[in-house]
Amino acid sequence: MKLLRYGPVGHERPGLLDDQGRIRSLADHINDIDAAALSAENLAMLAALQVEQLPIVSGEQRIGPCVANSRKFICIGLNYSDHAAETGAVVPPEPIIFMKSPDAIVGPDDPVEIPRNSVKTDWEVELGVVIGKTAKYVTEEEALEYVAGYCVINDLSERAFQLEHQGQWCKGKSCDTFGPTGPWLVTRDEVPDPQNLSMWLEVDGHRYQNGSTQTMVYGVAYLIAYLSRFMSLHPGDIISTGTPPGVGMGQNPPVYLQAGQHIRLGIDGLGEQHQVTYAAD
Amino acid sequence: MKLLRYGPVGHERPGLLDDQGRIRSLADHINDIDAAALSAENLAMLAALQVEQLPIVSGEQRIGPCVANSRKFICIGLNYSDHAAETGAVVPPEPIIFMKSPDAIVGPDDPVEIPRNSVKTDWEVELGVVIGKTAKYVTEEEALEYVAGYCVINDLSERAFQLEHQGQWCKGKSCDTFGPTGPWLVTRDEVPDPQNLSMWLEVDGHRYQNGSTQTMVYGVAYLIAYLSRFMSLHPGDIISTGTPPGVGMGQNPPVYLQAGQHIRLGIDGLGEQHQVTYAAD
Repeated sequence: MKLLRYGPVGHERPGLLDDQGRIRSLADHINDIDAAALSAENLAMLAALQVEQLPIVSGEQRIGPCVANSRKFICIGLNYSDHAAETGAVVPPEPIIFMKSPDAIVGPDDPVEIPRNSVKTDWEVELGVVIGKTAKYVTEEEALEYVAGYCVINDLSERAFQLEHQGQWCKGKSCDTFGPTGPWLVTRDEVPDPQNLSMWLEVDGHRYQNGSTQTMVYGVAYLIAYLSRFMSLHPGDIISTGTPPGVGMGQNPPVYLQAGQHIRLGIDGLGEQHQVTYAAD
Repeated sequence: MKLLRYGPVGHERPGLLDDQGRIRSLADHINDIDAAALSAENLAMLAALQVEQLPIVSGEQRIGPCVANSRKFICIGLNYSDHAAETGAVVPPEPIIFMKSPDAIVGPDDPVEIPRNSVKTDWEVELGVVIGKTAKYVTEEEALEYVAGYCVINDLSERAFQLEHQGQWCKGKSCDTFGPTGPWLVTRDEVPDPQNLSMWLEVDGHRYQNGSTQTMVYGVAYLIAYLSRFMSLHPGDIISTGTPPGVGMGQNPPVYLQAGQHIRLGIDGLGEQHQVTYAAD
């Protein structure tokens, strides 16, 4: 299933995308695409519905973040060997974990704000993993059972805030609108191999990122097992698994986002995002 | 007011502490001590209640975290000059920000888990600041208007996870139970000067930390203004403002927590916490 949330900011309703690309309402069956909706039992209930009998949602709809009320937005740093190289970093011997504010999460096509005093706002297309079941001290072998589904994430980053203002990357990762998430939460059964997905990102029509999850240093199953040694993962938590080469900081000379630019990005089978940038008031 | 939440984990109810140290129920007036309850209007409504007419809650009660559903748990690193010295770090020229998982938040007297494979679990008594109104690009002069109140926090930290397993401190800061918060949310009007509060922490009766918020490098107002340049702060968000000297890592030789130990800590006017440690299954 391709689960999604549509409607105005803060008033999104649950739906799914049918085979013809139409939104069907799930409002008669669940309240939202949230922690409660992501249990295996609930996803099985939704999968058993007759899609053609679900009400079609008509009209142009804003698409919201594909998961509601995520409490953790955990990111993995330098997790593609060629991205590490372009930023001048070495491949880390263990996964690097950092956190984005979950308040940075916005819809896949919502505008992206360039913060005040930003000079180095950058892009990162990433595979997002949404947890469906509480995971603590799980093994790599069983780890994928804890996944509800996958989605596209743009892990926007202000490099000066992140790297030039003292310690800890979250300072440049948590700005408002810095986490477009969606359009769909594609359930795990539709993604048989999360380590074989092409991904790309363009700014104003120029393709900067072209990659595949094949070149991840630490794969999804390893990451879930690893994280679960340090903290419990709960339904609705999002893990953004790192970005392939082609970020702005890696260009020669570096290229950063300005107000009024168009970002497009996507991952095979998980849909596309489109953001327009604007300057903070 | 000293606002609090009492009852079993996940089923806490709102209350306040009266002048005789009894819990009075606020259940007829608010649903919880959460983002909605922290608005200036709502706090004024609560302050206007006749305390002696509120129902007394009888019996022994577990105290929960003093704020519900916090979405951000932001911490400041090395924010006391003498603590920076004891850990061998220099005072940072700008505040160091890191994030703890909000899922680490527990009640002030709940047991604290020593994670599997932990060898360096450490303590940190800290002044917690709870936001009451959305803050974005606010000035230092107006910053305290965005505070709902203050509380005690134990910013538990696994130093090996934090410092010896590659990048970004959140790895050693987010373990389950690593954020005892409370007992009370003391509203701002009762804390005229947050930069003049004594604080202390003992393990098994030995006093390790003795300090005062007077020696903070960056004060509460500065921190709120600074943070609001990087991300919006929302009602219910918690800022833990750093710890004074005396952490386990700073002892000679270092001292770390084992299962079965008793931690007591407190801040003048904000109450005390008491935790017993246990080993993760």
